[in-house]
Amino acid sequence: MTGGLDFATVDVERERRQGLPEVVYGPGKTAEQIAGIVRVLLETATGPVLVTRIEADVAAVVRERVPEGEYHDAARILLWRPAEPGTFSLGVVTAGTSDGPVAAEAAVTARSIGLRVSEFVDVGVAGVHRLLNRAEEIVACDAVIVVAGMEGALASVVGGLVAAPVIAVPTSTGYGAALDGITALLAMVSSCAAGVTVVNIDAGFSAAMAAFRLSRARS
Amino acid sequence: MTGGLDFATVDVERERRQGLPEVVYGPGKTAEQIAGIVRVLLETATGPVLVTRIEADVAAVVRERVPEGEYHDAARILLWRPAEPGTFSLGVVTAGTSDGPVAAEAAVTARSIGLRVSEFVDVGVAGVHRLLNRAEEIVACDAVIVVAGMEGALASVVGGLVAAPVIAVPTSTGYGAALDGITALLAMVSSCAAGVTVVNIDAGFSAAMAAFRLSRARS
Amino acid sequence: MTGGLDFATVDVERERRQGLPEVVYGPGKTAEQIAGIVRVLLETATGPVLVTRIEADVAAVVRERVPEGEYHDAARILLWRPAEPGTFSLGVVTAGTSDGPVAAEAAVTARSIGLRVSEFVDVGVAGVHRLLNRAEEIVACDAVIVVAGMEGALASVVGGLVAAPVIAVPTSTGYGAALDGITALLAMVSSCAAGVTVVNIDAGFSAAMAAFRLSRARS
Amino acid sequence: MTGGLDFATVDVERERRQGLPEVVYGPGKTAEQIAGIVRVLLETATGPVLVTRIEADVAAVVRERVPEGEYHDAARILLWRPAEPGTFSLGVVTAGTSDGPVAAEAAVTARSIGLRVSEFVDVGVAGVHRLLNRAEEIVACDAVIVVAGMEGALASVVGGLVAAPVIAVPTSTGYGAALDGITALLAMVSSCAAGVTVVNIDAGFSAAMAAFRLSRARS
Amino acid sequence: MTGGLDFATVDVERERRQGLPEVVYGPGKTAEQIAGIVRVLLETATGPVLVTRIEADVAAVVRERVPEGEYHDAARILLWRPAEPGTFSLGVVTAGTSDGPVAAEAAVTARSIGLRVSEFVDVGVAGVHRLLNRAEEIVACDAVIVVAGMEGALASVVGGLVAAPVIAVPTSTGYGAALDGITALLAMVSSCAAGVTVVNIDAGFSAAMAAFRLSRARS
Amino acid sequence: MTGGLDFATVDVERERRQGLPEVVYGPGKTAEQIAGIVRVLLETATGPVLVTRIEADVAAVVRERVPEGEYHDAARILLWRPAEPGTFSLGVVTAGTSDGPVAAEAAVTARSIGLRVSEFVDVGVAGVHRLLNRAEEIVACDAVIVVAGMEGALASVVGGLVAAPVIAVPTSTGYGAALDGITALLAMVSSCAAGVTVVNIDAGFSAAMAAFRLSRARS
Amino acid sequence: MTGGLDFATVDVERERRQGLPEVVYGPGKTAEQIAGIVRVLLETATGPVLVTRIEADVAAVVRERVPEGEYHDAARILLWRPAEPGTFSLGVVTAGTSDGPVAAEAAVTARSIGLRVSEFVDVGVAGVHRLLNRAEEIVACDAVIVVAGMEGALASVVGGLVAAPVIAVPTSTGYGAALDGITALLAMVSSCAAGVTVVNIDAGFSAAMAAFRLSRARS
Amino acid sequence: MTGGLDFATVDVERERRQGLPEVVYGPGKTAEQIAGIVRVLLETATGPVLVTRIEADVAAVVRERVPEGEYHDAARILLWRPAEPGTFSLGVVTAGTSDGPVAAEAAVTARSIGLRVSEFVDVGVAGVHRLLNRAEEIVACDAVIVVAGMEGALASVVGGLVAAPVIAVPTSTGYGAALDGITALLAMVSSCAAGVTVVNIDAGFSAAMAAFRLSRARS
Repeated sequence: MTGGLDFATVDVERERRQGLPEVVYGPGKTAEQIAGIVRVLLETATGPVLVTRIEADVAAVVRERVPEGEYHDAARILLWRPAEPGTFSLGVVTAGTSDGPVAAEAAVTARSIGLRVSEFVDVGVAGVHRLLNRAEEIVACDAVIVVAGMEGALASVVGGLVAAPVIAVPTSTGYGAALDGITALLAMVSSCAAGVTVVNIDAGFSAAMAAFRLSRARS
Repeated sequence: MTGGLDFATVDVERERRQGLPEVVYGPGKTAEQIAGIVRVLLETATGPVLVTRIEADVAAVVRERVPEGEYHDAARILLWRPAEPGTFSLGVVTAGTSDGPVAAEAAVTARSIGLRVSEFVDVGVAGVHRLLNRAEEIVACDAVIVVAGMEGALASVVGGLVAAPVIAVPTSTGYGAALDGITALLAMVSSCAAGVTVVNIDAGFSAAMAAFRLSRARS
Repeated sequence: MTGGLDFATVDVERERRQGLPEVVYGPGKTAEQIAGIVRVLLETATGPVLVTRIEADVAAVVRERVPEGEYHDAARILLWRPAEPGTFSLGVVTAGTSDGPVAAEAAVTARSIGLRVSEFVDVGVAGVHRLLNRAEEIVACDAVIVVAGMEGALASVVGGLVAAPVIAVPTSTGYGAALDGITALLAMVSSCAAGVTVVNIDAGFSAAMAAFRLSRARS
Repeated sequence: MTGGLDFATVDVERERRQGLPEVVYGPGKTAEQIAGIVRVLLETATGPVLVTRIEADVAAVVRERVPEGEYHDAARILLWRPAEPGTFSLGVVTAGTSDGPVAAEAAVTARSIGLRVSEFVDVGVAGVHRLLNRAEEIVACDAVIVVAGMEGALASVVGGLVAAPVIAVPTSTGYGAALDGITALLAMVSSCAAGVTVVNIDAGFSAAMAAFRLSRARS
Repeated sequence: MTGGLDFATVDVERERRQGLPEVVYGPGKTAEQIAGIVRVLLETATGPVLVTRIEADVAAVVRERVPEGEYHDAARILLWRPAEPGTFSLGVVTAGTSDGPVAAEAAVTARSIGLRVSEFVDVGVAGVHRLLNRAEEIVACDAVIVVAGMEGALASVVGGLVAAPVIAVPTSTGYGAALDGITALLAMVSSCAAGVTVVNIDAGFSAAMAAFRLSRARS
Repeated sequence: MTGGLDFATVDVERERRQGLPEVVYGPGKTAEQIAGIVRVLLETATGPVLVTRIEADVAAVVRERVPEGEYHDAARILLWRPAEPGTFSLGVVTAGTSDGPVAAEAAVTARSIGLRVSEFVDVGVAGVHRLLNRAEEIVACDAVIVVAGMEGALASVVGGLVAAPVIAVPTSTGYGAALDGITALLAMVSSCAAGVTVVNIDAGFSAAMAAFRLSRARS
Repeated sequence: MTGGLDFATVDVERERRQGLPEVVYGPGKTAEQIAGIVRVLLETATGPVLVTRIEADVAAVVRERVPEGEYHDAARILLWRPAEPGTFSLGVVTAGTSDGPVAAEAAVTARSIGLRVSEFVDVGVAGVHRLLNRAEEIVACDAVIVVAGMEGALASVVGGLVAAPVIAVPTSTGYGAALDGITALLAMVSSCAAGVTVVNIDAGFSAAMAAFRLSRARS
Repeated sequence: MTGGLDFATVDVERERRQGLPEVVYGPGKTAEQIAGIVRVLLETATGPVLVTRIEADVAAVVRERVPEGEYHDAARILLWRPAEPGTFSLGVVTAGTSDGPVAAEAAVTARSIGLRVSEFVDVGVAGVHRLLNRAEEIVACDAVIVVAGMEGALASVVGGLVAAPVIAVPTSTGYGAALDGITALLAMVSSCAAGVTVVNIDAGFSAAMAAFRLSRARS
């Protein structure tokens, strides 16, 4: 049983296997398709249902068809049935204000699946004392997501400061040699700080999901 | 105090900050330099001391100068004072026999810093039933490292099967369009399985260090 | 004799050589040019005439000038004189709903040139059981087209399951490190499953044409 | 049952699923590992057993341990139990003499798994009449493998001449902008000849395996 | 003396050194700037004055300010004082109808600077007989420009057929692995046909200027 | 104290450390965010306050909220409290008129932070005498910024002419193989002229800031 | 008739079509294969016979089998029956001493096929007066080959100085961002000097062949 | 007069124009050629003469022919007539011990041309306190060279700490995604710290030459 749609095969066992229902990736899907998949998920699963990378106008159409959806503008996330906050504390550290939307995607996703999120904004390495001023708070988190574009150096500095798991999210902030985030991706993957892990460019959602896996590992 | 060397500034606070002494990256250093740094680490820290990516002949010279080092050939790791095994169970899943040395680097590192390691070798997706036959054991691990070259598809399949954190290690196994591991790296970062994280090409060591961060997050 | 156009040299021998008239590639051509070429093809050949990658508004203009054309929206194909269904069974397996338009291009092309098409939608490897549930049907096809973006892992898994020819179509679905389909292309070309072949990014049409070559090889 | 090796999980169901036993990829494996895997394959399967990309010196060691292996020098293939020739005729068309080793890998593999192979050497497009002189023979093949480096243009010309399936193998022949075969790969994937499919750079073996899939589709 | 503009330093010696006045590259310049430069060129030089890559609306503004300009739509060229036709015969050979605008840029430029141009359209290698049917005419040209996108194979085939200089122009026609013309560029530079030279992607203008240099070498 | 914003952590120590307040990078920030940061900077620092890469419409909104801002259209810079001109003379040398906006960003930034700027426009190497005619003036500058797109050759020629520091700015002027400035960047970094340094593509601002560092080194 | 070899199809019509026999590309061929092809060429053609990119030791073996071959060490060319010098004057302009071997390949090839060659060594743009001092001589040549690595700027400067055809040869001289010649290739293709054409990296031979085509265009 | 060599055109005006004689780039030159050029430089100039990137065995041959040369092993520099130390203080800051040879090239070059050099070794950002401990000394330098491989983050952190000019040297230290220094290069060019400039990968020499230009700007 996969929901009876002819354009999708909903993974109805996902929640049992991994603790969360399948999440809907918005791009390339019509509002109708999204609404159809969301309905199947709301019926076959019990946890939070999310649609990511969905623009406001598409979200509005979906919300008309599936009531009670909550839309987060900066994060471009549409969600139903957010989880209750748990005890896992996640730090989201952002290099610059321009990286805000990606950090928002991470933070909204994480909160909606039950993590506690603290945000540390605009603490990039061009003024490293801004980061060091907050270091104690960051060190206290159970896991840290670092969101940075351009050269992505923040991931290495945070990776060297904290003992907790660090998930680096390269962003497409920057221009020219920043190569739409490829440079930050390569730089973070090449980080001199051992044990830093990396997700896709602008993938705040993926970072939050990685943190969710960690939160379960701890419990 | 950084050990009195003129070619290195040993990070003697690393163990206090992150739970492990600095690890020595072998390439580009002479045996003399390595021996000097290892001595400082053995004196200023209490935990395991590792040198990575060190060839057998260089390791032999270092071992003459710093006794009691243990050399792991396939993993190219030289180490002193390995930790006692803890309770965190780490699965190391390998796509093919040719990925063995990278998996060995991950496993030797992980064991030497106190993780319990189970290895699942040669279970690549060209015969996906080999993987499914072992799925129950893999699902039971606290975290999973996936080591795969060529197209790196194994990371996505494992990422979809298990709920635990998945750390993907692309390898340089393959030829032509495999681009010395770049293809596997890009593929793993682009994985359709949510929450899979990635480290550098052939970076078995980094994956083990990421797992160490996880193991501490759990405790 | 090539049709008397001054902007095109219609390959009027194509049908004799390869069993199908030349297919018109839409981009960069005006509606007038397309209509002109289609008219020549309808006159000089006897089989199906297709225009690919043609937008709805251009297609409407062409259809005014050349009657009886049939436009397929999702596939962006305009066609005349579709062939009767033959006996060659082609499976079109799609990783995600977002890959739908490329799969539609493959399926519409294939049907219009006489192949029998079965579609298997949204069976990507993040939930590999969705694929395994359909495996028996897929194995029964005479050939299989696999349509997948992001990391393209589905091609390897299908390639390992079936004995029939597998034609992989990387798609531009995804973002960041997916590099508009380059990553899926490189990954599919590097597949660990032996004998998987690959066509261009988003080239559902090419895959169907490759299947047509196969269908003739069998007869 | 996977053969009782601790460094490999032999896919003993491969022959049943796909008509041929697993093929051993030589690089990154020791002679001991190769010999061990070959022994398991000879015992658990009935068809031809091949090791690819194996150097002469390694092959010699393996042959000492597993008797009756046959080594093909140019193709770098070591094989046991070659199949009887079948009825499927495969053309292997080569652009230049320097592409010979890749063509040899394709031809040796194809013959050892039961295909009938005709070779057309050094018929690259810089003197296109060399190809046209042989066109009739090439058109008569059931499938055609095109092996070409540098700009790989031969695949497009052959793709336009024949109706049969065309499998293009880019080679690393050339220098500078040929980018070790990447240019030929990209060019072949972008071919203006519809329905040409492509395998990895220098992957004569993969092309032969793709032809094997075709040969079964026909029967 | 460079014309008294504050935004440009017109190379008023260009015509004396190279036989043609400087040509104005349109992108990034305002209509006012273009008109100013053209006026200086019309005054300080005696030969044809061209503006390339200028859109119709900008050209209209310039023509209001500088009378007697002639605009070529497909070629996006605006020109004054075209030269009389000379005796040098230039063939412009095009792979497909979609490559037409680039071929137009080459042909319009060439005619405006005094070359005789013959056009051979849509003779790409997917139907190589279209090209061979015209071979005698092409062989008779003093120089040949080959315009082709996708895999650019036409340059190699023409390069092998004719003895005259061949200037290859890669175009951005195609998609996916065609990489906006990069693939055709790399392929043409790697051509197996000796002595083929290459200019930038879509650079019909540059090819015509190279032919102009040739035409002077002959005289 | 960082200004009390929740979306930014203003580096209020920047002016003390480096002689200039933090500069605001416009992209990815709303007009409200920009106005908020500018207000904090005007209050906590004493020097010039700049916003870069800000479009005219956004700048208009910001200027309504923070009076006395001065907007430079070509340079896309919004600024308050420009510095008095100092004694450091900076040459800004531009290859072509199309590189003008990047040169404007460099010149406006430099003037607003107290440097004296001389501009040398459209002196690219295709007519090298244009440059040589101005060489004496350029040699007399305390530092030289070279702004060039396409192949970026101007940086090497200027680098060989002057003894002063040369800061090269690759621009995205050009098409095809110019790769949006990547080619000029790589070329300038590979310059045969010793001691030429490079900043990011189109980064007129960064070049001016590098010159500011130089101007302080001199004083 | 193609010479009766089983590993090569000699293009015996090449000399008639293009004025020169086929040239043998050395890499990937055994000395035996080279000797065999050379013998066929000496018998079936009347003009010069060349083998390019052949190392001294291989050349020695070939010379034993085919007498009277002349080996040019720096150029790595082995040749028989060089042509008499004609009247076409070719300038070979080199940026640095390290580009010498590529320039030698161009010069030796050109002389052996009947062109008159003048060499202008080490006149790179870091000291542009070295070039200007020789400008008059260079301007007098019928065609100019420019050989340059690193950023390849010399091609643009020469392209702006001379009216004759300019063939640019990027070399792999340089390191890091020079990318083994890719940077020079991209830069030369993007040259601001109109009508400069480009051949492959280190392809002195191709440049000479392009000049040969020119020399025939003139006659 | 350029020294009477037939393989080189020594730029004998370089010292007058730029304050230093031409520096000899070793790769691709024979010992004989190097010795010849050095002799001309020693005769025609008065300042220091350097050969860079010269291996010990080649240097030994050169020193036999040109007495009094001093060879620096780690830096691979051979030099004559080093300058007296001046007053300009240059900091050379190195991320890791493995970056030592590049830092040595910078330091040896800088000292030999009259700069005062302080070295700060192994202060990479994985343990940022190592850097902060030395910050006061680094801030006091007239200019700073930052040498770092892998992700190159050190350049951004230093760029944010100091007011002086910062010249970043990416190194090829690292593996996989570090791409032989390309990643560090792109990251440094994309640095969020304003006014950081960059030279080629491993180009310690270029960085020192850039510092020399600065030192003259100050005087």
